[in-house]
Parts: sequence; structure tokens; C-alpha cells
Amino acid sequence: MSDDATDVLVVGGGIGGLAAAFALRRARHQVRVLEQAAEFGEVGAGLQLAPNATRVLREWGLLDEVVATGVLPRRLVLRDALTGDELTHMDVRGDFERRYRGPYVVAHRTDLHRILLEACRDSGVLLETNRHVLRVETTGDGVVVHGADGTICRGAVALGVDGLNSTLRRAVVDDEPVNSGYVAYRGTLPLDAAAADVEADAMVIWIGPGRHFVQYALRRGEVLNQVAVFRSPAFARGEPEWGTPDELDAAFADSCDHITKSLVSMWRDRRWPMYDREPIDRMTGGRLILLGDAAHPMLQYLAQGACQAIEDAHVLAAQAARHAAGGGRVDWPAALAATERVRAPRVARVQNAARLWGEIWHVDGVARLIRNELFTTRVPQDYRYLDWLYGV
Amino acid sequence: MSDDATDVLVVGGGIGGLAAAFALRRARHQVRVLEQAAEFGEVGAGLQLAPNATRVLREWGLLDEVVATGVLPRRLVLRDALTGDELTHMDVRGDFERRYRGPYVVAHRTDLHRILLEACRDSGVLLETNRHVLRVETTGDGVVVHGADGTICRGAVALGVDGLNSTLRRAVVDDEPVNSGYVAYRGTLPLDAAAADVEADAMVIWIGPGRHFVQYALRRGEVLNQVAVFRSPAFARGEPEWGTPDELDAAFADSCDHITKSLVSMWRDRRWPMYDREPIDRMTGGRLILLGDAAHPMLQYLAQGACQAIEDAHVLAAQAARHAAGGGRVDWPAALAATERVRAPRVARVQNAARLWGEIWHVDGVARLIRNELFTTRVPQDYRYLDWLYGV
Repeated sequence: MSDDATDVLVVGGGIGGLAAAFALRRARHQVRVLEQAAEFGEVGAGLQLAPNATRVLREWGLLDEVVATGVLPRRLVLRDALTGDELTHMDVRGDFERRYRGPYVVAHRTDLHRILLEACRDSGVLLETNRHVLRVETTGDGVVVHGADGTICRGAVALGVDGLNSTLRRAVVDDEPVNSGYVAYRGTLPLDAAAADVEADAMVIWIGPGRHFVQYALRRGEVLNQVAVFRSPAFARGEPEWGTPDELDAAFADSCDHITKSLVSMWRDRRWPMYDREPIDRMTGGRLILLGDAAHPMLQYLAQGACQAIEDAHVLAAQAARHAAGGGRVDWPAALAATERVRAPRVARVQNAARLWGEIWHVDGVARLIRNELFTTRVPQDYRYLDWLYGV
Repeated sequence: MSDDATDVLVVGGGIGGLAAAFALRRARHQVRVLEQAAEFGEVGAGLQLAPNATRVLREWGLLDEVVATGVLPRRLVLRDALTGDELTHMDVRGDFERRYRGPYVVAHRTDLHRILLEACRDSGVLLETNRHVLRVETTGDGVVVHGADGTICRGAVALGVDGLNSTLRRAVVDDEPVNSGYVAYRGTLPLDAAAADVEADAMVIWIGPGRHFVQYALRRGEVLNQVAVFRSPAFARGEPEWGTPDELDAAFADSCDHITKSLVSMWRDRRWPMYDREPIDRMTGGRLILLGDAAHPMLQYLAQGACQAIEDAHVLAAQAARHAAGGGRVDWPAALAATERVRAPRVARVQNAARLWGEIWHVDGVARLIRNELFTTRVPQDYRYLDWLYGV
């Protein structure tokens, strides 16, 4: 790292870091992204972008490209994992799109990441790999970012966007990720190779006792994305080896035919234990602000991880503009504090709602009957549970 | 007991036995009730009569008298036991009464019992106390009822209406009552002595984790009836002494103020462990038919114990009429078989629904949130859950 002064130092080049870098670069800041890995990239498969995120992507001029690589589902469907019966659905075209001023899009993580990376590159963000950051020091009017290799890097402000296992979070709060005891298996396959009939223009989630299964088409409908998530009995027993493929099979054994047929296509050589953290009311420490999963890792039940990182980026850019003096010089401490004031309660609510939503999906016994009754009697045009999240 | 032949021998002089005796006496059968105790009587407090029972009482000419001693609530209300908030309610006048062709009445158990007893006496039912029946023997064309004192009594048919701990049930099925692990405390007090504001024209149930509390006015609104029911931790631990007053206080400690204030008026010297039995598909053994709690004891969550006993009586009288030859001589085996065919599936459904309803009342955690959401979004005019029970 050189010691060239840069306005904004972004630590982490995942979706959240690149979104923040691009949002600030659009606002004419000098932005430099420091990525630990040897290459920029994303692992994973499908990712959902709700209107609260697609509105921002449209404003950034990136939505069309995201949509072109992805799929605009017609419906979000919840089904019972045991019976396969539809419980409720949401039409996400028409009224929904108008109400929330954006489409619901599903995309491949790597596509969204690539689009953001190219947008950053094209707009003049400095993108650097092999930059392992250890800590951020706040000086009188700036930050010094210390690399593991002893180099330093100076800027006016640092964004800690280094993910679930964030190193920089330690400067703000002393906590650890919370293991939910659930694990996800993923898999993609050509849509025409699917083992069961697929509702190709829907995002379908089968919910059941201690498990759920997600299926939707990606990449213009060519690829089928599948996610199988379950509560690990071995984890509950305190065993070190948990969430194995054997547990996957056992967890879904009594599920409906559609799921058991579809499970054969899951990748079995990789799995994702599901973590989040307790919500916190702070995101800042000096001139460092945490964003994305570094600030508010969440369970995936609302599919809001990427969306909230995009909201973070959008709000920070807006607050930087609001706290800029005539010459364009930003009062960063004020901008960070204002961002925290806006974002901390919002993301805490999303984190908590995601946990609750997961509990609702996974209930058993009489609670499942009540849940199914609530869902099946719901009117599909009822937006009451969504307005706070997708914004009206 | 003499050996005078009587058409119908009714074993048990509680509400169920007297209802059956009166129903058959109205149809001009010779009816004799054999009650084990030294006096006819009922213990307990309030009792609910839904339209499926009040329609029958009206047909029997007894409804006005029951209503005159009781209360016609305006609303049935479900509230959350922790917050006190109303979850849903049902207006039980107007539309409700018209739809189900009968009112919803709450009465004192002793009042209903007395009205049935007087109706039996006035219509010529033979009423005998101190008759401890051991067993019923079916002969070629009748029954012989054997008393504990060695006497016998003959009739054409015997009705086993000897309650939860029925002796006669053994002739039909070899089973035992099922202990729910819940216990009820009851209490009545003058309405104007109530510790908290009472909704005097409503039947209110507060439902919460492992507990519920019932409150409604009785006897023309002069008396307040209260029932507090909870799951006993000591029972769950397998201890012989369970459901104590200390457990009562602990079970309701975190309940809303209205409940904790009201609990001071509960009788603490007596408690009712709550039992039912598994549903069975038979009610008959030879010329013996089980009715009421002897046939289908149920948890009280649908408040249908007395109602189903009254339905039993009504159906049996109708089937006896249907299976009578020209001279009035009844083909009792056919009448009993037809009654069983009609009643066994019906009461099994009520027993199972009562268990489920109890589970729904007592859920905790996320299930309680879902349940409350389901109830609070319910339209009060929605009869979907009631039609099968109260009959359209």
C-alpha cells in the first residue's frame, strides 16, 4: 500500500464493499477497495434482490444489467414441506412492483458481484487485491489502515465491509457470530435436468419442521438454483462434526416427493453453516463504519443480506452528500453518525425479523397447523407484513 | 332393586343420564334411573351450552327455564393471558343465533341438573339413589343390571352414563382415562365482589403458555364464575403430588393484572385434574350403550361435555323412534347400532378437536405469536371453525 491519501478506504471487496465503493464513487469521492483475497470473487449461488435493493440498483444505473442476467419471478410461493401443498403466495409483478417501485429479481451471486466490480472499475474505483487489513486507526482528520504486511494506507474514512467474520468489527463491539445450528446445502443444475417438475417463473420455498427447501430459476431461466437448509441434530447434541450429508438426507426424509427427488442434485462436498450476530446499536468506531455483514450479519430467511448491504451503501452516500461543505469536503464523523442513526435500528429489525421468520418456517406440531392456517387464509394481495421491509 | 321389567335402565344420574332418561321418557318409554350416590346432585360451577345443545333443550321444552337461571352472553372473547389484549371474539347473538338456531347459554351445573331432574320426575321417570351398579348382562331380549348389593333389575336396554370413571365402559373397551397433566381450579363469587373489572355480558377466556383463565357471569349475572387451568410442572416431573395451589400461583405469576387480581377468589381447597380418553369407534356392548362421559370424556376446551351428552340423548331417542315397530316395540339392538353409527365419529371428532384446541390455547414462543396473529386477523363473523360443531 502506498500512503497516498484517498477519501474512502473500503476494506472488503464482496458485494457489500463494492456496492459501497460504487455508491461513493458515483458521488465523486476517491475510493479505494482493499480486498484480502488474490482475486475479486464471490462464492455461492442464487441471491434475491427485493425492491428495497432494486430501486437503488436502478438509481445506480445497474438494474437493467442485473435483470438481464437474472430472472424476474412472477410469484413467491410458500409450500408445506411435508405435504407439498401451497400455503400462500405473493404476486411480485404488477401491483407489487408499482407499490414498492422496483422489481423482485433473483440473480446469481457471481453475476451481481461482477456487475458491481465492472461498475467500480469503469467509474474509477481503485481495486486492490492481496490487501489483508488488520486494523483501522482514526487520527485527527483521517484514518490509517494497517495491513498485515506492515504497509499502511491513509484516507478520510474507512468502511469495514469484511463480512461475517469481520476483523474490523472488533473496534466497535466485542462479540462473536451466533451459530444457529442450521446448515445449508446448495446446488445449481440446468433447468432441463431437474428431477421434478419446476415452477420456472416462481421462487418457491417449502417450509417444514426443522427444515426448508428453496428452488428458483436463475440466469434467464437456464439454471435451477436449489437450497436445502436444516437443523442439525448432531449440533444440538454438541458434536463437533455436524450438518453432514447423512443428516441432510435424514432431515428431509419425510418431506414431500418434490423435495426428496430434487435433493439428489445438491452439492454434497460443500455446506454452509448458518450464522448471524446479535443486533448492535453502533456501527461506527472513530472514522470507521461497519457495513453489510460486518455490521449486521443475518439469517437468510428474509433474503435481505445483499439488499441491506446495498441499502447501507445508498444511505452512506446520501449522508456524505448531506454533510458536505461547499467545497465538497465531507464532515465524515457527522456523516457516519447520521448513517448509524438511520441504519442501526433498521438492520436490527431486519436481523430480528429474519430470526423470527426462520422460527415460523421451522415450527412443528400444533404450531405448524396454526401457521399453515394463518398462511392459507392470508389474502395474496395483503402487504401488511412487507411494507416495513420493502418500503412504500 | 325389584325385578320389574322396565324399557330403559339408565345407569347414572348426572346431567348425561338425566338428559337421556328425559329424552326417552318424552318418547313414552318406561325409564328408570339408577344413581349410585345417596342423593342426585352435581358438583362444579359454570357450564356452557352451545346451540347444538340449546336447540335440543328447546325441543324438550326446557330451554326457557335454563335461560331464566343462566346468562345469555353477548360475546365470546379470547384474550392473551400475558398481555390481556383481545385476540378475537364471536358475537353470539343475532346472526350467530339465527345461523345455529339456538342461543349460547351459560348456566350453573347444579341448575341444569336440577331442571333435568325435575323434568324427569314430572314426566314419570323412576329415580332411584343408592344404586351401585356393577355390570350389565345382555340376555336374549333384554338386560339384567346387577347391583353391588346383589339385587338385579331387568329392562329392554341399558344406558351406561356413569361418567369419566365408568364401570360399565369395561364391557365395551379396556382402556383408562388419559391424564392431561393439566389441573383446573374453580371459584364463584358475587359479581360485585370481583377484584377486577369484569365484562359482565361476555364469556372471556385468557389463553397463554401452559395456562388459561375463564371468567363469565352466571345466574342472571349475579354470580361470577372463574376457572383457572394450568399445566403442572410437578406432574411433568412424575411427582405424585401435583397441581397444588403453589403451582397455581406460579403458573399464572407472569399473567396480566386482570388474571392475577382475579385469582385471589379461586377455591383453593379443591381442584380438578383434567382427564379424557382416547376416542373409540364403539359405544355398545350387547344391549348396553355408553353415553356422555362414559362413552367420550373430553377435555373442556370446546366446552362440549354437557352438549355432547345432550346430543347423545337426542339421537338415541330419535333412533329408538325410527326402530320402533307398529305397536311401539323398539328393535333396541338396531337402535343402539344406529346411534353408535351416528355418534361415534361425531364425538371422536369433538374429543380430538378439544385436545387440539387446548394445544392451540397453551402454545408458547413463536407459536403463540403466530396463533395471536391468526386470531387477531380473523373476522368476527367468520363461522368456518364452528359450523361442523354447532351445526348449520
